[in-house]
Amino acid sequence: MRATEFLLATEKETPADAVVVSHQLMMRSGMIRKLAAGLYTWMPLGLRTLRKVEAIVREEMNRAGAQEVLMPAVQPAELWEETGRWFQYGGELLRVKDRHNRDFCIGPTHEEVITDLARNNISSYKQLPLNLYQIQTKFRDETRPRFGVMRSREFIMKDAYSFHSTEESLEETYNRMHTAYSNVFTRLGLDFRPVWADTGSIGGAKSHEFHVLASSGEDDIAFSSESDYAANVELAEALAPAGERPAATAALETVSTPDVTSIDDVAAFLKTDAANVLKAIVVRGEHTTEKAEGEPAPVVLFIRGDHELNEIKAEKIEGVASPLQFASDAEIEAIGGVTGFVGPQGLSAKVYVDRAAAHMADFVCGANSKDAHLTGFNWERDCALPEVADLRNVVAGDPSPCGKGTLEIKRGIEVGHIFQLGTKYSAAMNATVLDENGKARTMIMGCYGIGISRVVAAAIEQNHDDNGIVWPDAIAPFTVGIVPMGYQKSEAVTKATDELYEELKAAGFDVYLDDRDKKTSPGVKFADMELIGIPHRVVVSDRSLEAGNVEYAARRDGEKHPIAIGDIISHLKAQVAN
Amino acid sequence: MRATEFLLATEKETPADAVVVSHQLMMRSGMIRKLAAGLYTWMPLGLRTLRKVEAIVREEMNRAGAQEVLMPAVQPAELWEETGRWFQYGGELLRVKDRHNRDFCIGPTHEEVITDLARNNISSYKQLPLNLYQIQTKFRDETRPRFGVMRSREFIMKDAYSFHSTEESLEETYNRMHTAYSNVFTRLGLDFRPVWADTGSIGGAKSHEFHVLASSGEDDIAFSSESDYAANVELAEALAPAGERPAATAALETVSTPDVTSIDDVAAFLKTDAANVLKAIVVRGEHTTEKAEGEPAPVVLFIRGDHELNEIKAEKIEGVASPLQFASDAEIEAIGGVTGFVGPQGLSAKVYVDRAAAHMADFVCGANSKDAHLTGFNWERDCALPEVADLRNVVAGDPSPCGKGTLEIKRGIEVGHIFQLGTKYSAAMNATVLDENGKARTMIMGCYGIGISRVVAAAIEQNHDDNGIVWPDAIAPFTVGIVPMGYQKSEAVTKATDELYEELKAAGFDVYLDDRDKKTSPGVKFADMELIGIPHRVVVSDRSLEAGNVEYAARRDGEKHPIAIGDIISHLKAQVAN
Repeated sequence: MRATEFLLATEKETPADAVVVSHQLMMRSGMIRKLAAGLYTWMPLGLRTLRKVEAIVREEMNRAGAQEVLMPAVQPAELWEETGRWFQYGGELLRVKDRHNRDFCIGPTHEEVITDLARNNISSYKQLPLNLYQIQTKFRDETRPRFGVMRSREFIMKDAYSFHSTEESLEETYNRMHTAYSNVFTRLGLDFRPVWADTGSIGGAKSHEFHVLASSGEDDIAFSSESDYAANVELAEALAPAGERPAATAALETVSTPDVTSIDDVAAFLKTDAANVLKAIVVRGEHTTEKAEGEPAPVVLFIRGDHELNEIKAEKIEGVASPLQFASDAEIEAIGGVTGFVGPQGLSAKVYVDRAAAHMADFVCGANSKDAHLTGFNWERDCALPEVADLRNVVAGDPSPCGKGTLEIKRGIEVGHIFQLGTKYSAAMNATVLDENGKARTMIMGCYGIGISRVVAAAIEQNHDDNGIVWPDAIAPFTVGIVPMGYQKSEAVTKATDELYEELKAAGFDVYLDDRDKKTSPGVKFADMELIGIPHRVVVSDRSLEAGNVEYAARRDGEKHPIAIGDIISHLKAQVAN
Repeated sequence: MRATEFLLATEKETPADAVVVSHQLMMRSGMIRKLAAGLYTWMPLGLRTLRKVEAIVREEMNRAGAQEVLMPAVQPAELWEETGRWFQYGGELLRVKDRHNRDFCIGPTHEEVITDLARNNISSYKQLPLNLYQIQTKFRDETRPRFGVMRSREFIMKDAYSFHSTEESLEETYNRMHTAYSNVFTRLGLDFRPVWADTGSIGGAKSHEFHVLASSGEDDIAFSSESDYAANVELAEALAPAGERPAATAALETVSTPDVTSIDDVAAFLKTDAANVLKAIVVRGEHTTEKAEGEPAPVVLFIRGDHELNEIKAEKIEGVASPLQFASDAEIEAIGGVTGFVGPQGLSAKVYVDRAAAHMADFVCGANSKDAHLTGFNWERDCALPEVADLRNVVAGDPSPCGKGTLEIKRGIEVGHIFQLGTKYSAAMNATVLDENGKARTMIMGCYGIGISRVVAAAIEQNHDDNGIVWPDAIAPFTVGIVPMGYQKSEAVTKATDELYEELKAAGFDVYLDDRDKKTSPGVKFADMELIGIPHRVVVSDRSLEAGNVEYAARRDGEKHPIAIGDIISHLKAQVAN
């Protein structure tokens, strides 16, 4: 592509609403343009990368035996009512009425539509397994769309859904998708990790997220230092500390702590570590039997002061309301607590203590009376040990739950997610097949997503420097950029450049030739090429041509190498990753 | 692709709501499945064809210098308010409110979004011309979606928009798009015609439709027998008959025609031809000056009894309300007419007569009194000749407006449309560039659409027989189908089939191998292959292999040819259109 025939829309200014680097660079390089909050137009430059991501995903899905379909974006409410999600799904579901006043939504996901398709078209176990996918535009009406295409409202997703008559078959396809996803992200040239993940609100049994590692990621990923184990911190199990709990040595005392309520303030006030203070979190309860009446009592969770509550783990505790809701001052008072001074003694509520907190000794905790804490507190001596549970986020240095090594924590951007859904949707929608004995059986399902547009942003978060994007070869909008010095002025440069351009195209390279005239300085051309992140640059000048050379530089290191003009194509072939 | 790894969803029954053959065959062959009224899922079979159409369109658009972008489907109301279409566009515009109660629509077209993009990113005439296109999902909330994907609510469209600083530049890009569209439909293997078209409600100066010819088409296309001229009947000019109007010979008489009002009834009652009866159409008027007050008077249009009023031509007549509305009995009475008996004598209204009707002599017309007609009526003798205008649809045999030959009429399905928009959108949205003199000038625009999903249906309307679809090679879901007789039973057949399958794939063919076991009879396999329309079929059997042959048949003629097994690939290469 010649620059003079291409809508390059680079900009010097970074828009004020672009706070993450991928958003900034996608705007500055002219990959995208904002239409409205969370709605972006993909410009020719950005679309080239988007399509390359799509193509790699499509190839690997096909290779794994999945079949491509295309479902409507607009979906009838009836199907969502069958699964109950018409009511459960919050404001992210963009609901719309058609001209006949019938309810539809703009699909944020397609479980209902695909399950409807399966129940209408699949009747026998012999037609299974079946894995259908699409690459399609979705809409989620985010309250606060942000980070450009990283969390936009309209976005492109590859979503796949598999159907099975046995759990073994689901497991096999799930593993095949795990491999396909690893192939995809490897081919994209990204540093990624598949991690164990929570199955969250979509439900189901087993789940992995695929994360692109980047310091700007929103998720914390825990890795074992000595195995393949990786899990979202949301999910990673925090093991009990090794050994026995230390014996009690200090005497229990009540100390006055006027208006001192936060863990840090208490620790500072009492000249101890946060790790020595017991943190209380009082959450709303929910009835554990259908017969129970009235307001459910709150539940008290204790963790070590230097730890963070893991809300997903907490929500899974019996009797705790999900989603998690914090109790009010009045609710805390009703169980014998005082907000800011809640401790384990004398509470009339169900109480859980985290494994690490259960290991504390001689610690500080609330006294359940205003402006007072207890010091030298010890479980079993000063109160019974509550039920022990895994309640906290793991931290770096924790033992790995796999049993090998300790955990490290890195930040990741979730770009893929695979789920064993089980029968959540197929049971609700009565999607059955006849088995070997002619008996109707509910189909077992898996689902597998990749955020195609999000991958583009995540790739930039991982691959950029101060001058712009540093694309992996596989998804660069152009693989090779040519900058001629004095094009249209020096006949030799024009001739060598045009020949090189044609030869590179013929050899299958995506080439960008900056043929803009002298009104655009070489400095601007170099800066643009760095900003848009073309991984391989060739400079053609009279000076280098006199020596029979052109100048090659890789975007990643910027080092300039003279290469004989006759060798440049084979040089590039060797440089470009396949 | 092996049948056992492919979701083939052929059906014997034709759904009751499928009234056109393309809809019937797309359902029966399993190309699409209905989700809701006007919403279809593209199944693996259908999507293969859809993607081939997309790929050809994309290649020709790129070749013509257009650049691909991707705009959001969801569009903010503000832009549509700028052009006034938020209010003008009827119920087809699916309006939606987001969670913050802001107005959006699901885009049926993207003039507003692209014009906004252009005004924000293009500032100088030097950046023009620019031609941007996308292949994207659109939504039109049709009152009565029908004919499957031919008139669905959600559909895929290629829409392109060009921007210019001069009319000459628009003309050049328009012509280039005309050529690109001709290339597209030629490559798709379709019998098509570019025809002059009305610019309709989108406005603008010049327009061509591209029609796939098919007897089931909704549009009538007029062709010259002796030139390239082709136009939508909506637009084709009806020339005045050659020569002078015949002289009056009959005497004017009033005849009693009790309750005889329709043209056919009048002609039968008076034993004459419809061509000898003057047809009156009374339509509502509109004020031609802003000062006029009160209800505008109706307008009377006279055409020959055997002709049809062309509503688009009528709407363009000065003083006629657009869209066309027929006058009530009372309104007709108020101008001195009687419904069913309106004639030219003594009307107090503006009157127009069609060119052919102005050429009638000794004819029958209404007497403007109940139950009476006049016979032997002659213009200028019995009343002044009203203003003459082109008011009717052309018919077969009319002289071609190009001046050469006569017109033929064929039916077509509109699959593409190119428009010279002019400044309709750019002026409303203040999309300007600076010209050579640094003066702001409104950009001039063109727009160019292809109904990608509609092309698939149109191709079937044109290419089918009693047994199913007869795909052109370029857009067949599979180009070659192999039916082995006794696969899994005869070792020789299995070996020859598997080898042929691999060789054909290696040679770049899209191959479908019906490897289903003996529970599926050869008859069912042949019927499926004909239904889904694979253009080239190879049958492998023990009997043919004994003679060193396989059997080849083209879907279009069905004739079976023994081909030496060593020659089949070169034979197929020769048969398959490139």
